[in-house]
Amino acid sequence: MNITIINGPNLNLLGTREPGIYGNSSFESVLQQLRKKYGNVNITYFQSNHEGDIIDRLQEIGFGDADGIILNAGAYTHTSLAIADCIAAIKTPVVEVHISNVHAREEIRHHSMISRVCKGIIIGFGTDVYRLAIESFLSE
Amino acid sequence: MNITIINGPNLNLLGTREPGIYGNSSFESVLQQLRKKYGNVNITYFQSNHEGDIIDRLQEIGFGDADGIILNAGAYTHTSLAIADCIAAIKTPVVEVHISNVHAREEIRHHSMISRVCKGIIIGFGTDVYRLAIESFLSE
Amino acid sequence: MNITIINGPNLNLLGTREPGIYGNSSFESVLQQLRKKYGNVNITYFQSNHEGDIIDRLQEIGFGDADGIILNAGAYTHTSLAIADCIAAIKTPVVEVHISNVHAREEIRHHSMISRVCKGIIIGFGTDVYRLAIESFLSE
Amino acid sequence: MNITIINGPNLNLLGTREPGIYGNSSFESVLQQLRKKYGNVNITYFQSNHEGDIIDRLQEIGFGDADGIILNAGAYTHTSLAIADCIAAIKTPVVEVHISNVHAREEIRHHSMISRVCKGIIIGFGTDVYRLAIESFLSE
Amino acid sequence: MNITIINGPNLNLLGTREPGIYGNSSFESVLQQLRKKYGNVNITYFQSNHEGDIIDRLQEIGFGDADGIILNAGAYTHTSLAIADCIAAIKTPVVEVHISNVHAREEIRHHSMISRVCKGIIIGFGTDVYRLAIESFLSE
Amino acid sequence: MNITIINGPNLNLLGTREPGIYGNSSFESVLQQLRKKYGNVNITYFQSNHEGDIIDRLQEIGFGDADGIILNAGAYTHTSLAIADCIAAIKTPVVEVHISNVHAREEIRHHSMISRVCKGIIIGFGTDVYRLAIESFLSE
Amino acid sequence: MNITIINGPNLNLLGTREPGIYGNSSFESVLQQLRKKYGNVNITYFQSNHEGDIIDRLQEIGFGDADGIILNAGAYTHTSLAIADCIAAIKTPVVEVHISNVHAREEIRHHSMISRVCKGIIIGFGTDVYRLAIESFLSE
Amino acid sequence: MNITIINGPNLNLLGTREPGIYGNSSFESVLQQLRKKYGNVNITYFQSNHEGDIIDRLQEIGFGDADGIILNAGAYTHTSLAIADCIAAIKTPVVEVHISNVHAREEIRHHSMISRVCKGIIIGFGTDVYRLAIESFLSE
Amino acid sequence: MNITIINGPNLNLLGTREPGIYGNSSFESVLQQLRKKYGNVNITYFQSNHEGDIIDRLQEIGFGDADGIILNAGAYTHTSLAIADCIAAIKTPVVEVHISNVHAREEIRHHSMISRVCKGIIIGFGTDVYRLAIESFLSE
Amino acid sequence: MNITIINGPNLNLLGTREPGIYGNSSFESVLQQLRKKYGNVNITYFQSNHEGDIIDRLQEIGFGDADGIILNAGAYTHTSLAIADCIAAIKTPVVEVHISNVHAREEIRHHSMISRVCKGIIIGFGTDVYRLAIESFLSE
Amino acid sequence: MNITIINGPNLNLLGTREPGIYGNSSFESVLQQLRKKYGNVNITYFQSNHEGDIIDRLQEIGFGDADGIILNAGAYTHTSLAIADCIAAIKTPVVEVHISNVHAREEIRHHSMISRVCKGIIIGFGTDVYRLAIESFLSE
Amino acid sequence: MNITIINGPNLNLLGTREPGIYGNSSFESVLQQLRKKYGNVNITYFQSNHEGDIIDRLQEIGFGDADGIILNAGAYTHTSLAIADCIAAIKTPVVEVHISNVHAREEIRHHSMISRVCKGIIIGFGTDVYRLAIESFLSE
Repeated sequence: MNITIINGPNLNLLGTREPGIYGNSSFESVLQQLRKKYGNVNITYFQSNHEGDIIDRLQEIGFGDADGIILNAGAYTHTSLAIADCIAAIKTPVVEVHISNVHAREEIRHHSMISRVCKGIIIGFGTDVYRLAIESFLSE
Repeated sequence: MNITIINGPNLNLLGTREPGIYGNSSFESVLQQLRKKYGNVNITYFQSNHEGDIIDRLQEIGFGDADGIILNAGAYTHTSLAIADCIAAIKTPVVEVHISNVHAREEIRHHSMISRVCKGIIIGFGTDVYRLAIESFLSE
Repeated sequence: MNITIINGPNLNLLGTREPGIYGNSSFESVLQQLRKKYGNVNITYFQSNHEGDIIDRLQEIGFGDADGIILNAGAYTHTSLAIADCIAAIKTPVVEVHISNVHAREEIRHHSMISRVCKGIIIGFGTDVYRLAIESFLSE
Repeated sequence: MNITIINGPNLNLLGTREPGIYGNSSFESVLQQLRKKYGNVNITYFQSNHEGDIIDRLQEIGFGDADGIILNAGAYTHTSLAIADCIAAIKTPVVEVHISNVHAREEIRHHSMISRVCKGIIIGFGTDVYRLAIESFLSE
Repeated sequence: MNITIINGPNLNLLGTREPGIYGNSSFESVLQQLRKKYGNVNITYFQSNHEGDIIDRLQEIGFGDADGIILNAGAYTHTSLAIADCIAAIKTPVVEVHISNVHAREEIRHHSMISRVCKGIIIGFGTDVYRLAIESFLSE
Repeated sequence: MNITIINGPNLNLLGTREPGIYGNSSFESVLQQLRKKYGNVNITYFQSNHEGDIIDRLQEIGFGDADGIILNAGAYTHTSLAIADCIAAIKTPVVEVHISNVHAREEIRHHSMISRVCKGIIIGFGTDVYRLAIESFLSE
Repeated sequence: MNITIINGPNLNLLGTREPGIYGNSSFESVLQQLRKKYGNVNITYFQSNHEGDIIDRLQEIGFGDADGIILNAGAYTHTSLAIADCIAAIKTPVVEVHISNVHAREEIRHHSMISRVCKGIIIGFGTDVYRLAIESFLSE
Repeated sequence: MNITIINGPNLNLLGTREPGIYGNSSFESVLQQLRKKYGNVNITYFQSNHEGDIIDRLQEIGFGDADGIILNAGAYTHTSLAIADCIAAIKTPVVEVHISNVHAREEIRHHSMISRVCKGIIIGFGTDVYRLAIESFLSE
Repeated sequence: MNITIINGPNLNLLGTREPGIYGNSSFESVLQQLRKKYGNVNITYFQSNHEGDIIDRLQEIGFGDADGIILNAGAYTHTSLAIADCIAAIKTPVVEVHISNVHAREEIRHHSMISRVCKGIIIGFGTDVYRLAIESFLSE
Repeated sequence: MNITIINGPNLNLLGTREPGIYGNSSFESVLQQLRKKYGNVNITYFQSNHEGDIIDRLQEIGFGDADGIILNAGAYTHTSLAIADCIAAIKTPVVEVHISNVHAREEIRHHSMISRVCKGIIIGFGTDVYRLAIESFLSE
Repeated sequence: MNITIINGPNLNLLGTREPGIYGNSSFESVLQQLRKKYGNVNITYFQSNHEGDIIDRLQEIGFGDADGIILNAGAYTHTSLAIADCIAAIKTPVVEVHISNVHAREEIRHHSMISRVCKGIIIGFGTDVYRLAIESFLSE
Repeated sequence: MNITIINGPNLNLLGTREPGIYGNSSFESVLQQLRKKYGNVNITYFQSNHEGDIIDRLQEIGFGDADGIILNAGAYTHTSLAIADCIAAIKTPVVEVHISNVHAREEIRHHSMISRVCKGIIIGFGTDVYRLAIESFLSE
């Protein structure tokens, strides 16, 4: 099974950025744990602060042999119709995840541009959302 | 591990109600599969069409020895501040789940009254959301 | 022909409640007149102040041999998505009625949560709305 | 008993216009059936695509010997304050009807400018709304 | 001096329509008084329930030798962008008048589509608004 | 003098629920103090998490010999038109109370559905609001 | 006949303030012309930049022998509920005037807090609005 | 090929009306140029200030042998649901055009009632929009 | 115990102003009764129509030896952020009172700028709100 | 004549992306046809999923010798003020095009950030919008 | 160089008022530092809690020989159109300052009535905003 | 002292872009003047039209030895939550600047996504905002 995790803007700062909200572990350690736990899943990882890069990458993967994409679009979740359009255009199913409970934060984070076109949405379990998203693909 | 699943209004019709949206399996068969898969988890189940019953039950469980509550509040998700207040008041963590992708449906289903006070939210994977919610408690 | 009339919150007070708006006759006398006029129609009646009771009853009737349901959901008309979901889920057609002209009253009464999923809507002819709703089923 | 039916814009296309929404019968056949069924009711009919014509006609009838007016104002329902003012000004009671369930259609059709000043409102039973409106006058 | 008074929909009913709001005098008696009082002013009068007629008339007058137009557009005040566009297009100045205090009535009457393009606005003095409007042209 | 206190959803948790907002005393101790202080007032108490139960009880009391009702409708304050309708329908005057300053909390708590139909409103003095409400009836 | 003109904030700058909008004449010259034209009318004048002063003055005049008040509340027109309450409380009728066409300016100037409680409103004829307001009192 | 051009309210003033916005050429000269350029296209022309006339004409053409309709509904673009309903009802495709860039003008002109049901929309090229609309039909 | 009552704009007209809403007693008689009833409470009184005066006075009292302030800010309740800021800045607790049930009146009176920063709010018991506010301070 | 076509995000997927909305032809075939038809027009083409790239390119072209730019900004149409600012800053005129009828799709696609600063807008004729945009430049 | 600093409501409490937001220094010490630092600038200071006083003072200075005005209008920033009008009317340029970052506080503080008519705006550097405002005048 | 200036989209066009709004000097000349005036401040400069580039750069600087960042995010000010998140995540304080008075321009420019997380905001002094921002860091 092939799964790609795509992290959006500022998620490269995980572990150093507002630990009260996002926790202390870097994403690399999260990734290591996931790969260890799910030995038979080939997990690819990509992070970018550029909306266009995320679209480019979604397009590259989205017509290929990946079984699923896990997307934490960060702030672009709330502002990018272009990423939403891309998810609607590609063939690989996308699961939207958020580390923090966005609904317990500012108003602007209560609305997601991309939820409508995603296969499912997992919010607020800390970095465990990535594991749960993998689980969601395994259950098929 | 003790987990209670609470289903809100009209979810007793699962399997017969709008199968295009909610699928064909009754919740009993979903429950059977979960109990089979998670032998070491004691899963209790409750369904009611009454907002007050859901609050009563949350209060009964919420100060006891349950490790977690999985709540699909159905339509009350979008209208019940009283259930949200109850979740905030009790001690047991609550995970909000929705079978369908509520963000791909009517406007009124895009806003949840209870997300803000839940531990996490899982949306749109069909009845698999219940399994993923159990997984979220196991990961702790 | 089997028809069930369901009245929502505070409609048990008909005749004593704000007569300027709702008139002086109790619902029992209305019912008596309808049964007299429509001898060949079996009219069942149910009233409750509980949103959950109304849903329970709709579900009981909604997959049975009733030909139609006449629902005056009272204040729940404007706040209950759960009743709307129930109407969408059952098979028996539901006609929404209102005794007073809700559009000539406060803003909040101008929007109905349930109209969208009802077979038809009859508003503002006093208690004659129940007779007209029966007529609507007879015309089929 | 004298009753006038007034149909607004595009309702002359009934039977040819979007049959999925408005059905296949022309209004002439509807009228024929009504006249047959209600032999003792003198039914006059008027249709216009002009807001001003509808007002002119309402004024002509509204101080005369008609017992009631049945008005399907079509799209003007949602945009014409002038028709609403006219209904408030005349003496003959007006019943508002809609063939389709306007609340199950686009947002703009959920609000009626004229409901507030009508005697009653009947929505969504197909062309049977005209018969029910006649019934509503007979019940007096 | 040449002045044209244009009255919009339902203002032909003045004297019979909702006397509590609009008073008991017909517009003809108002006109008679004005002509008597302002002997040196040639007052032309036009009333129509048709938006298009009002535009046609405004266009006819608006490039001619009239010194001013007094327009009580009735309900079209609040809904007609087309009349507003016409006022902006013609050369003769237009004074907007309202018999009743529209700001003490329903919300929808608080906003005028045409005020922006009128020379001035006179509201709420009963039928005396027509006299004041004539005065406004005399003062030049 | 007969006074009934009705507490809505989650107010049975008083003393254990979010003490930072609602204080540490259970409602039983509040009640005891009130009964001690107002020996000549017969204070009845009712609590329910069910909207329908609150309406049922208001109807039972509202046409009887109670001199006043003190209602803390909890979260239903902000969502229940049905309770508001009930208060308008009954004869006994109702005083609305809130323990916390709802206006210093989330937006949704700034609007009360029931204030409009209550005799008066007392907000934000902790559990002392119940005593002040009794005082308000005594002053008559 | 006794009439008081009250001008609100910044209207003391008339003639120097934004002449493109408000014209070149100071209010003193306007006043002189009015007194000359209406010899039999006793015109009192008051200007203040203080909301409280305007209320104080309205109260002083409003129960006395003045026949009318002409109020140009300037910017307070759009923000002062207190002045509106005062106009509603006093007995002397108040005519609201504006020199410029407020509806052709910024959005915030399209809504008046005080129109609802005034006898009439005259807008946009330059300083001629004061004369027209006097005329409106003379016509009684 | 048969094409009908329909112009709405105030477009008969083209050339004299606000030339800064709409240009100096009358529509007749535009028409002449189009007929010269597209010799093989039979171009019919209709203008009216009446909403009802535009609907009448659309209905007449809309079930006939015209290949396309070019509609500049002027101000009715922004207020007429009735014209939109008519376009949806007829069979001939309609192209919406605007001479000026409506999106660079007042807010109310940014929303079109009819765009949703038109084949295409061409905005802001001056009177060249009519030629481009003809081109759009030729390309089929 | 020292308590200051501050009344805002137009409250000096109590007894003469809209008696249907505010009652017939002047505030002086209210004050007399309060002083008689609460002999051991030193009640100071201040009224002003000036927003700035109310702020000045709140500042004077707010860092002194007063035990409480009772503020009926009248119309400034709904428009004055400056008074709200002042209440937040001073040390003496402030209780907000309203004689009429503001929630049963116009929309603009449903929102208070100052509730958020007050100790408590008492609304709608007529002039008895002042007594209840004193009671609220005594209970401490 | 030099014309540059700029396509925004996901338009590189034309032909494979949601063919029901965007059609089956790739943009390369569209381009080929255009170059064939307009032999004397030098058509340059650029596509990017990056908002910044589109701005960079607009700046490069916008002060040079291009006669016109045809911009299909895709989803950025609805979210990018930066592209709008760029169009306003450059000298080359820009024509906005959309393949699908954006007004017949989701709400968010009804508003364009860039229309205001474009020379003209062409919407909904499928890929023929590019040809019509070229025509619009030729007509000058 | 002559500069006047005007502070609005509650800013006289600087140093004692909510030090967490506004800091511990009184404005007198701030003033002393500024006068020391800018020996060649004649700094005048005025504070008032009265909207009218601020307008009076702005008018006095605004046509005189001051080179600039630094205005911290406090809460009036968000509610006073009258002060905005005054700034637009006078000749001396006004710089708006705020000690705290108003955009990180409540919603109502995010909108300034006066920014539109000020020369510039400086927000959120604590009392250093006054120095920066002086700098802004020096740079000319 | 190390300070980085970051300019967002289209600010590379300074001097050529809409000089009426942004002035005639290129940013290079502004930079030269600043470096000359503040010899002891090491000023680094970065401009990009790419949202992602601005985030990348903010991250590079934001955990290093820069004393401050001056950010003119141009149009991204109003649309980029991702830049706001980045500013919140980094350690170096950021001062937001705007050359023009954004509050005197279109509605969309009145709201800044980033103000909330910036140290301070300086708006509307032309290119002098950069100097004032440097001053703001020097004052520490």
